[in-house]
Amino acid sequence: MSDSLVARLSPTDYEQVAQLVLPAPIYGWIASGADDGQSLTDNVAAFRRWRLNAKVLVDVRNVDISTTVCGTKVDFPVLVAPMGIQKAAHPEGEMGTAAGVTATGSLFVEAINATTSMEDLAAKYPGMAWWIQLYNWDDRKALEGIIKRAEAAGCSGIVPLVNTTADVSHTPARVGYRLPAGVKFAHFESSPGLDFGLTEEYIEWMAKLTSLPIIPKGIVRGDDALRAVNAGARGIMISNHGGRQLSHEVSTLDALPGVVAAVGKKVDVIVDGGVRHPSDVLIALALGAKAVTVGRPVAYGLAVGGGEGVTRVLDWFKTGVRDEAMLCGITNINDLPPDLVVRM
Amino acid sequence: MSDSLVARLSPTDYEQVAQLVLPAPIYGWIASGADDGQSLTDNVAAFRRWRLNAKVLVDVRNVDISTTVCGTKVDFPVLVAPMGIQKAAHPEGEMGTAAGVTATGSLFVEAINATTSMEDLAAKYPGMAWWIQLYNWDDRKALEGIIKRAEAAGCSGIVPLVNTTADVSHTPARVGYRLPAGVKFAHFESSPGLDFGLTEEYIEWMAKLTSLPIIPKGIVRGDDALRAVNAGARGIMISNHGGRQLSHEVSTLDALPGVVAAVGKKVDVIVDGGVRHPSDVLIALALGAKAVTVGRPVAYGLAVGGGEGVTRVLDWFKTGVRDEAMLCGITNINDLPPDLVVRM
Amino acid sequence: MSDSLVARLSPTDYEQVAQLVLPAPIYGWIASGADDGQSLTDNVAAFRRWRLNAKVLVDVRNVDISTTVCGTKVDFPVLVAPMGIQKAAHPEGEMGTAAGVTATGSLFVEAINATTSMEDLAAKYPGMAWWIQLYNWDDRKALEGIIKRAEAAGCSGIVPLVNTTADVSHTPARVGYRLPAGVKFAHFESSPGLDFGLTEEYIEWMAKLTSLPIIPKGIVRGDDALRAVNAGARGIMISNHGGRQLSHEVSTLDALPGVVAAVGKKVDVIVDGGVRHPSDVLIALALGAKAVTVGRPVAYGLAVGGGEGVTRVLDWFKTGVRDEAMLCGITNINDLPPDLVVRM
Amino acid sequence: MSDSLVARLSPTDYEQVAQLVLPAPIYGWIASGADDGQSLTDNVAAFRRWRLNAKVLVDVRNVDISTTVCGTKVDFPVLVAPMGIQKAAHPEGEMGTAAGVTATGSLFVEAINATTSMEDLAAKYPGMAWWIQLYNWDDRKALEGIIKRAEAAGCSGIVPLVNTTADVSHTPARVGYRLPAGVKFAHFESSPGLDFGLTEEYIEWMAKLTSLPIIPKGIVRGDDALRAVNAGARGIMISNHGGRQLSHEVSTLDALPGVVAAVGKKVDVIVDGGVRHPSDVLIALALGAKAVTVGRPVAYGLAVGGGEGVTRVLDWFKTGVRDEAMLCGITNINDLPPDLVVRM
Repeated sequence: MSDSLVARLSPTDYEQVAQLVLPAPIYGWIASGADDGQSLTDNVAAFRRWRLNAKVLVDVRNVDISTTVCGTKVDFPVLVAPMGIQKAAHPEGEMGTAAGVTATGSLFVEAINATTSMEDLAAKYPGMAWWIQLYNWDDRKALEGIIKRAEAAGCSGIVPLVNTTADVSHTPARVGYRLPAGVKFAHFESSPGLDFGLTEEYIEWMAKLTSLPIIPKGIVRGDDALRAVNAGARGIMISNHGGRQLSHEVSTLDALPGVVAAVGKKVDVIVDGGVRHPSDVLIALALGAKAVTVGRPVAYGLAVGGGEGVTRVLDWFKTGVRDEAMLCGITNINDLPPDLVVRM
Repeated sequence: MSDSLVARLSPTDYEQVAQLVLPAPIYGWIASGADDGQSLTDNVAAFRRWRLNAKVLVDVRNVDISTTVCGTKVDFPVLVAPMGIQKAAHPEGEMGTAAGVTATGSLFVEAINATTSMEDLAAKYPGMAWWIQLYNWDDRKALEGIIKRAEAAGCSGIVPLVNTTADVSHTPARVGYRLPAGVKFAHFESSPGLDFGLTEEYIEWMAKLTSLPIIPKGIVRGDDALRAVNAGARGIMISNHGGRQLSHEVSTLDALPGVVAAVGKKVDVIVDGGVRHPSDVLIALALGAKAVTVGRPVAYGLAVGGGEGVTRVLDWFKTGVRDEAMLCGITNINDLPPDLVVRM
Repeated sequence: MSDSLVARLSPTDYEQVAQLVLPAPIYGWIASGADDGQSLTDNVAAFRRWRLNAKVLVDVRNVDISTTVCGTKVDFPVLVAPMGIQKAAHPEGEMGTAAGVTATGSLFVEAINATTSMEDLAAKYPGMAWWIQLYNWDDRKALEGIIKRAEAAGCSGIVPLVNTTADVSHTPARVGYRLPAGVKFAHFESSPGLDFGLTEEYIEWMAKLTSLPIIPKGIVRGDDALRAVNAGARGIMISNHGGRQLSHEVSTLDALPGVVAAVGKKVDVIVDGGVRHPSDVLIALALGAKAVTVGRPVAYGLAVGGGEGVTRVLDWFKTGVRDEAMLCGITNINDLPPDLVVRM
Repeated sequence: MSDSLVARLSPTDYEQVAQLVLPAPIYGWIASGADDGQSLTDNVAAFRRWRLNAKVLVDVRNVDISTTVCGTKVDFPVLVAPMGIQKAAHPEGEMGTAAGVTATGSLFVEAINATTSMEDLAAKYPGMAWWIQLYNWDDRKALEGIIKRAEAAGCSGIVPLVNTTADVSHTPARVGYRLPAGVKFAHFESSPGLDFGLTEEYIEWMAKLTSLPIIPKGIVRGDDALRAVNAGARGIMISNHGGRQLSHEVSTLDALPGVVAAVGKKVDVIVDGGVRHPSDVLIALALGAKAVTVGRPVAYGLAVGGGEGVTRVLDWFKTGVRDEAMLCGITNINDLPPDLVVRM
């Protein structure tokens, strides 16, 4: 693997190469954000307002960066964000991503809009940690069916989107995105409509249906997080949909302190959006997150090198988190001193 | 309509196309601001310092974005700002703008410097909501004549400019703007001079003259707003003349909280200037405005596509306001939670 | 005059044209600042952090923008900063500047390094208001001689530099500036050395020597301003030498509030540096200054059009100050409401 | 010397010329920072947030800019930061740097990764002030050997790195840096491994081993600084390794107030990183530092002109510090008024 072009490139350069190998509509669909892209920019920029206050003269010969997120063990606190239609990025599709997740000990949040079924993934990678992301379909029976399939296939977490409550397409028309020919959804023939009437009842209904932890995705407010927890959620995934939906929504890192203040230590909080550097992981954890997700960087890794590309992206994060923990005098990623970060 | 080039373009791209189809002096006259353009830039930039703190797990199947502004009902809280000489932008002129206003249920603030008379507009679009904007002429009889004509034609609001108190031309000489050949003012042969001696008496005089609500335009200070209300104003249109007059004036959104604090719930406050996104509407309303106006975006829509262009611009705002309200968990646009917005 | 190219250009474009007509070393010498130019940039940028909170519904038919600065009457509160060797910019040199000052009713601060003598200026423009700027020569007799000449010639203010206390040349070597051939200093054959041992005694000595008001130039601290006033100064000219000396000195507008707080209403405070717009004048006055100086804009006016150019620059400021005062509801430039400005 | 090209260039232009004369991998290795270069940029930018509040009317005919840093006398408070492999920049290597240090009365922090031995330097420049920088080798005997050699050679300070606690290479792979052919390390045949188990014990061990002052380098936190001092350190060198190690670490100037607050006047604090102007020296000292180091500017001086280039760089700082002290009314560099600087 180390002689391949994929390996000779730095993962930080994958986006640039992805733009060269992907059809423009596919790249545009991955890279773009809603409207003027402000939320997308904000997610990244929010991390850049924090700096690490590195601690020295600490014995860091043994550093543990593994953790448990909503009950699932991972080798490092970086999960793969749910992204649909991964075969549009590379023929390996979700199988490639699963290869990278397995190789590095990450966690795969499989999208309901996947082009490879959860059963096929679980069969090929039986040891892989994975969760399933759901849309707020207006067909509860269909949702129940998916949840039961996930349980049977070995899923360890349910991630219902709770912020997809309008008929919006994030993608500017000029991107020209269409589902590539020959690519099919793996979990349904045709997608049910969406239910814009979601309330806490939705979480309660789901919590009664399954013993798997429910981690709603798409929350940015503390009051909403607390309502979700009181309704049965066992984790909160802070997300503005990767800046793809509401063009001037608060960034996810800026939303983190309010959510942590509201739910305290009751449940794990995950930050989705804007993570581009290993230091971003330390910053989010120092501010109270249990883990983060990465989306676009993984998509570019998949586009450039299939499973090998995803592996290299995730390994770059994993190695970076460990090295930066050592440089910061941290021996356990679950126990960050509150003053590790300073705001600019 | 949907196959036309106008329809295939995004309204967010209209300015770019307008610059291609308009003579340079006309485009320059529309696009430019006073001096170094700081106030023009500020108006837009002020909105970019706020973010939406979207609420989820709210039933948004029924969302009402209609409202009443200074007594006039509109289908969504976005009005068309007064802009003179619209035939310079497109042969349809004010008739095109009226077509768009009527099609979307907005409100047309007709400029006294219009190139189509209010009577002609009202005859062609009898159901359209409209107000008339006045200059501070030094001929009160002439002003009275206009107001009486407006009343007779079905106008529902009077918008006297109160900040045009010096002989300044915003337009840099190098723009080279001149009234296009064949274009004539519809409401007067030659414009009276301006009165630079305006005081509260001006509002009082006007309030005695008509029972229509008076909404002075060009106020940025709370104390001025309160004086105007005490003199009989029934609305306040915060404006720095689109950044076309005083080069380093406070931006209109930054002025909003002070005006709202001064006049409270006594009258409706409207923000004029800088609105470019549907989220800007939500931001202004969350900070206390009842509605906003849009100027340049409508002018570019008119330039590109006449009535069809204006319709598409206004519909883009209307659809966007509704969708973003749903994504923010808002069911009634008149009842925004104070914490909907956060300052960066 | 109005058909000349000088008149057809906007004064805001003079710098661009000056760069075309001046030899590069002369333009570089005028335009550059010390080291990386930070102080020069800062002087201008400091004004851009303030906005005008315009007042309306005020009768502004009669507006007075004249004032008295350290005892000298001017038609508007904008003085010409001391700049040496003006014949390097244009053959008319200081005579051109004096023409503009006289035509507009400004005040000329003549530099001791002038290329036209104060006596010649006073003879040609007997009604012109003017002060003389001094260096801290180490030859008190020579200084006394200059002061006596100034008194005899009708000078109404003495402006001793107090911040030229090291052998520094602001001009980067690569600018290549040299005194142009044929240009001579008008007030001395060869300049005395400088005295780096200045204390309050310098002001006291000078105050005993002359009854003219002493306005030390080069102060940015409140404590220094107060010491100077206690030693006999009757005005303070806040200056960092146009950003030409200390590369990261506090900007003059940022220094203004501290100086005003220290000296209160005892003496007039003048801001030198960064004034580029009429609104800058209002901003400085609202923050406590009695007047401002303009330097580089006048030099560019001189370079482009001699006396005609200077006249147009000063008139642009004068007209702008009057118009913006009217737009802000100000009837007397000496009586600005404290809340006229808001900080960004 | 003054006719040479080296002398005709300004030291502020040396980086530009160094990029022309150095092989790209060498320039890249000197100029680059870790990851996206944020820490490198931050170090410089932190100084730009402070301005000098210059004092006037002070007798500055006699100004003393000499000081004593951790017991070593220097003619001005600017030291040369430890940089390895200087023969990569210029054939003169460390000998060139020593020539400049000697000529200006600075202090040379010799890197353990030097390509000229400390004994050779001391023999050639017997009067030069110098310290030795150490890596945290996992071979204490080898470390002890170096320290004893340093003592014997006339060293006056030991600078152990305490922040090199992970196997990271700052240099992006695409820089392509390799040790130039024919260049050899002077202090060892092959470098021992590093010890990632450092604690205060490391300082205590070293303090018992030598009577030379120990100045640990790589500290940014007040608590770490205090622990180091309690363990025997007699100085603190605040450093983030020139932004070459942890990509989003706090800048060194931003770290200064916290370190000064923690260790008070017990030991001297030195700021390493971001110093590019004479004013930066005054800023750091006003905020509590006793001295600063300069790294890259010296490396560029060496690359461009060997010893002559280093001399000119250091002399530019020395002259600048003295001139700016005079312009700020400072007569003793060790006694800066706390209000000399203001934050933007």
